[in-house]
Amino acid sequence: MDVEEGFNLIKRNTQEIITEQELKQLLEQKKHPKGYIGLATTGKIHIGYFIPIIKVGDFLNAGFKFTILLADIHAHLDDQKAPFELLDYRVKYYKEVISAMIGALGIDTKNLEFKRGSDFQLDKNYTLDMYRLAALNTFDRCKRAAAGVVRFGENSKLSGFIYPILQALDEQYMDMDVQYGGIDQRKILAFARENLPKLGYKARVEVMTPMLPGLQGAKMSASEEKSKIDLLDSSETVKSKINSAHCPIAVEDNGVLAFLKYVIFVNKKDKNKELTIKRAEKFGGSITYNSYEELEKDYLNKKLHPMDLKNTVAEEVNNLLEPIRRKIKEKEDLVEKAFPGN
Amino acid sequence: MDVEEGFNLIKRNTQEIITEQELKQLLEQKKHPKGYIGLATTGKIHIGYFIPIIKVGDFLNAGFKFTILLADIHAHLDDQKAPFELLDYRVKYYKEVISAMIGALGIDTKNLEFKRGSDFQLDKNYTLDMYRLAALNTFDRCKRAAAGVVRFGENSKLSGFIYPILQALDEQYMDMDVQYGGIDQRKILAFARENLPKLGYKARVEVMTPMLPGLQGAKMSASEEKSKIDLLDSSETVKSKINSAHCPIAVEDNGVLAFLKYVIFVNKKDKNKELTIKRAEKFGGSITYNSYEELEKDYLNKKLHPMDLKNTVAEEVNNLLEPIRRKIKEKEDLVEKAFPGN
Repeated sequence: MDVEEGFNLIKRNTQEIITEQELKQLLEQKKHPKGYIGLATTGKIHIGYFIPIIKVGDFLNAGFKFTILLADIHAHLDDQKAPFELLDYRVKYYKEVISAMIGALGIDTKNLEFKRGSDFQLDKNYTLDMYRLAALNTFDRCKRAAAGVVRFGENSKLSGFIYPILQALDEQYMDMDVQYGGIDQRKILAFARENLPKLGYKARVEVMTPMLPGLQGAKMSASEEKSKIDLLDSSETVKSKINSAHCPIAVEDNGVLAFLKYVIFVNKKDKNKELTIKRAEKFGGSITYNSYEELEKDYLNKKLHPMDLKNTVAEEVNNLLEPIRRKIKEKEDLVEKAFPGN
Repeated sequence: MDVEEGFNLIKRNTQEIITEQELKQLLEQKKHPKGYIGLATTGKIHIGYFIPIIKVGDFLNAGFKFTILLADIHAHLDDQKAPFELLDYRVKYYKEVISAMIGALGIDTKNLEFKRGSDFQLDKNYTLDMYRLAALNTFDRCKRAAAGVVRFGENSKLSGFIYPILQALDEQYMDMDVQYGGIDQRKILAFARENLPKLGYKARVEVMTPMLPGLQGAKMSASEEKSKIDLLDSSETVKSKINSAHCPIAVEDNGVLAFLKYVIFVNKKDKNKELTIKRAEKFGGSITYNSYEELEKDYLNKKLHPMDLKNTVAEEVNNLLEPIRRKIKEKEDLVEKAFPGN
């Protein structure tokens, strides 16, 4: 794949790249640049994670060596979303489920590795740099950086304000060229760009993709059951949740269209497949799309009924989830251990 | 020394002990308990430090194994009062000057050791516990704990809020029975008492002595030149600073009386000496005191003139400082390296 192709593949469906020029230069200079995404091992994984996992595939196909960071310390820093004594199980759960997703998408994992945050984030030099950045940044600056990711209430824990500092240092201590994350990470990634040079380290390229909207609008969130589809939801639950999803004749706040755009059509395209919407003859018969754009146009022009769309998406989601469910079912006690009584 | 004697010696001139009962139990259970004081290696050392160094002597005489922690990371966390690249020199400076003070007071150092904060505060388990406590404590709680020591302005650095957490963990990771500090540390020491048990560690005994008032009232502070006498001030500077000191006919806010009480008389008493105030015959002639209490009484009753007091204190201070000046003079470049251009 040449530089231009690689660049376009990485850029596909992104919301922001800081900066595009630096990314191009990187691709010109290195055959196998290093990139990573950090996943805080907090709640259960939902289908919103398909967007980043597909993008990880893009990075790999563009020649990257890619790391999925299982950020266990981050998970605990975020208001103890992962209780300390469950961290081992949460990390295992994330690794198993993400691996199953990667398998379901057919991503080549030759240049992919998993890394656990606490395996290097407790090293002396890392910690010393953490304290140095804490002494260089005001409380307010750290709060602003974390605000998109860590939820601050009246009784915010101190740890949430330290969170962005670790994320900046991860880029340096894993020797990365690129950090990739959801657009919710934007302020943390900007903080990293601003802060690494203060310690004499180079600023990295930051790549961001949009968040999958929740089924009831806003962003899909692990903490709101009705907004999300858990990767291990049953086939029936998937159907019922998508059936009752908010699916306006508009692109905004439409989790069903977004999943079609960012996941289903990308996956189809990469496998040279098309999407067929099955429809009774009396409603116009089945219809086949080669691109999301055609489908979106028809939907906005009311040539496609929301129920036709929902039925198709439910079926596609279940096709994606089926092998994942099977794989994780073999490790059922892991889910119970990672999320006891849940 | 029996338990009662040891207890009384440690209690002498303290302002608060949390708790006295626990301290007594400790002395009953252990022949050589472990205690420490942490000194953040920030500014130049002033004569206010004689209070803690004398108390260190008390701990040693009561049978303690005692550690002086040269808290370099703390120094940097406190709004970078010690710039990162000067930490090595600041630590050396503190060690040399404190050692010279100990020598000047004639303290037996058999059971005394120095330790540097960064030598153990960057260990993995320490750091992990730091993150755990940061996730257990609200930002407000940490702020309240640090407020007596770290100065928080509008642009407070994040590091100042982490500061109390390290100080709590120091007790555990140096395996101490007692932490000793100035009364300005009170809220940090209370934070330590409250927090170590949350991680399953035992709460330690906390011992506090008063702060030496500054020569112009308030507490003696490294950052206010006129309020303090630097250990390396010349004999003439000492005389002139004490001559112009605020020395009301009252105990409160009186740095001259306080130095007599907490340093000069303690040192005299431990060496079985008395204090003579030299005075011309026409003003009543010289007068000798065996205890601070007698002197204070005469001063408050105006039987002693402020100038007589000041002259005597200036002479006593110079007697204490002379050997320290000589010792540090041999290492003059160290002061210049630790405080360049100062």
